[in-house]
Amino acid sequence: MTYCCGILVRDGIVMIGDTRTNAGLDNISTFRKLHLFEEPGKRVMALASAGNLSVSQTVVSLLSEGVVIPETGERRRLADAPTMFEAAQLVGLAVRTVYETDAKLMKDSEINFDVSFLFGGQIEGRRLRLFMIYAAGNFIECTTDTPYLQIGEHKYGKPILDRAVHYESDLYDALKINLISMDSTIRSNLAVGMPIDIAVIRRDALAIELNYRIMPGEPYFTDLRERWSAALREAHIAIPSPPYATSPIETASIPEPIDAAPPRTGAHANAANMQLTAGQPAAKVLQQQNLKP
Amino acid sequence: MTYCCGILVRDGIVMIGDTRTNAGLDNISTFRKLHLFEEPGKRVMALASAGNLSVSQTVVSLLSEGVVIPETGERRRLADAPTMFEAAQLVGLAVRTVYETDAKLMKDSEINFDVSFLFGGQIEGRRLRLFMIYAAGNFIECTTDTPYLQIGEHKYGKPILDRAVHYESDLYDALKINLISMDSTIRSNLAVGMPIDIAVIRRDALAIELNYRIMPGEPYFTDLRERWSAALREAHIAIPSPPYATSPIETASIPEPIDAAPPRTGAHANAANMQLTAGQPAAKVLQQQNLKP
Repeated sequence: MTYCCGILVRDGIVMIGDTRTNAGLDNISTFRKLHLFEEPGKRVMALASAGNLSVSQTVVSLLSEGVVIPETGERRRLADAPTMFEAAQLVGLAVRTVYETDAKLMKDSEINFDVSFLFGGQIEGRRLRLFMIYAAGNFIECTTDTPYLQIGEHKYGKPILDRAVHYESDLYDALKINLISMDSTIRSNLAVGMPIDIAVIRRDALAIELNYRIMPGEPYFTDLRERWSAALREAHIAIPSPPYATSPIETASIPEPIDAAPPRTGAHANAANMQLTAGQPAAKVLQQQNLKP
Repeated sequence: MTYCCGILVRDGIVMIGDTRTNAGLDNISTFRKLHLFEEPGKRVMALASAGNLSVSQTVVSLLSEGVVIPETGERRRLADAPTMFEAAQLVGLAVRTVYETDAKLMKDSEINFDVSFLFGGQIEGRRLRLFMIYAAGNFIECTTDTPYLQIGEHKYGKPILDRAVHYESDLYDALKINLISMDSTIRSNLAVGMPIDIAVIRRDALAIELNYRIMPGEPYFTDLRERWSAALREAHIAIPSPPYATSPIETASIPEPIDAAPPRTGAHANAANMQLTAGQPAAKVLQQQNLKP
């Protein structure tokens, strides 16, 4: 498994990725999944991968050495792409190229052709853009409405992103939220693990502003994890207890099926009347008699 | 989709379930998934279901009207089970009974036989127990190490449970945490929705202590959602910004492949050296020439 998340805010892109790969729980390794391409002043790109490692590594190598364009037979690299859109198309083409050579025999071995990418960056004179590329080579682009994209084990880390990230968020606040999101994921899924790779690309800088690896025990991330855990504990303690306990009389002696909660709206009251309760010994005996020969 | 969660603490069981069912995003309905069985002073049981609604409803009806025991031909209901373990076995048998009649034709219609249950309660003179029953009719039991079980869309709501619930938690604190877990799930998955059904079973009370339905807009749950969101925002704001920005020099002019993060341990430095960067125009031209006919 993998967790990578890219956030696009007004000031730039923050992309992070874990480094754990696994073939079963008994075969765990560390591989970098966040790849950076930089030609300072001209272009800067970050590519994060999830899915089958052989597929994602081959895609990355093709993008570096050249993907054959079917129409012309020409090879093109990420370094040649004139726009981020064409670069994203090239990533898609690389995925399709690997699919054609590898997918059938992988399927024969009952291995899914499963890969996805986050791909963000900027080319001189063009916009900063962030894409997510699927296993079929098609892709979507991040917009200001939901300024993040995730690949891999996305669910555990999504609630904090949904609540805290906005397009107007500060670039390093976005990094902080991204790390909280990673912490939630690492905590709940063993297949996502340290170290964590970080890339920060500031809009119009046309260079990697930050290329950093957080190792286990790194002080800032350790502190972030402890603060976040403590804050969650305090947050739920600060919420008052449910008041429902104070009205047990409402439900203490319900004569009809107790699956029906106290009716509150007509529409739902009907749907709730589904199930008989226990405690009908006479009917029980009757049923058994009817069934016995 | 569905989200149901049962928590077993020293003082009792809290079980909650959403009520949204969907066949595609364009066909959403409200159905109760939390079913209660009660014979005050003798037995009390809560059964929450996830998966295919026709399967779960048929299982619930069989448990109420009687499941045929293959060995004897006799019918047995939840009301007849002498222990919670035998009751859980009966739920499993009901699942297998429906599997035998329905699974093949469901498969022919490309519908998975997908169902799971949380089943908790107590019978006079016996322990309070909480089980999760799978689609094959097998089951596991909740223990004090991890005092909760989830079915359905379990990931979004798991981080708060992992952090906050303990076997020694107060019964209504467990309900509060369960509701926070439900809130995270509802927020991130449209297929999980209000109203929310709640059951509280206090140990040795042998009766339902609380049977309650939270409707949309209900004041306590609305307040809980707002407080939780505000607390999360405050929590991430209170965490200091990442200090990594202050050392851009480390990475500003890396001559070797920039996929390699600054080496920190020997073991990881090798794994990180995977990918060439852009910016080799001479080599690029050469590659293209070699490939052109």
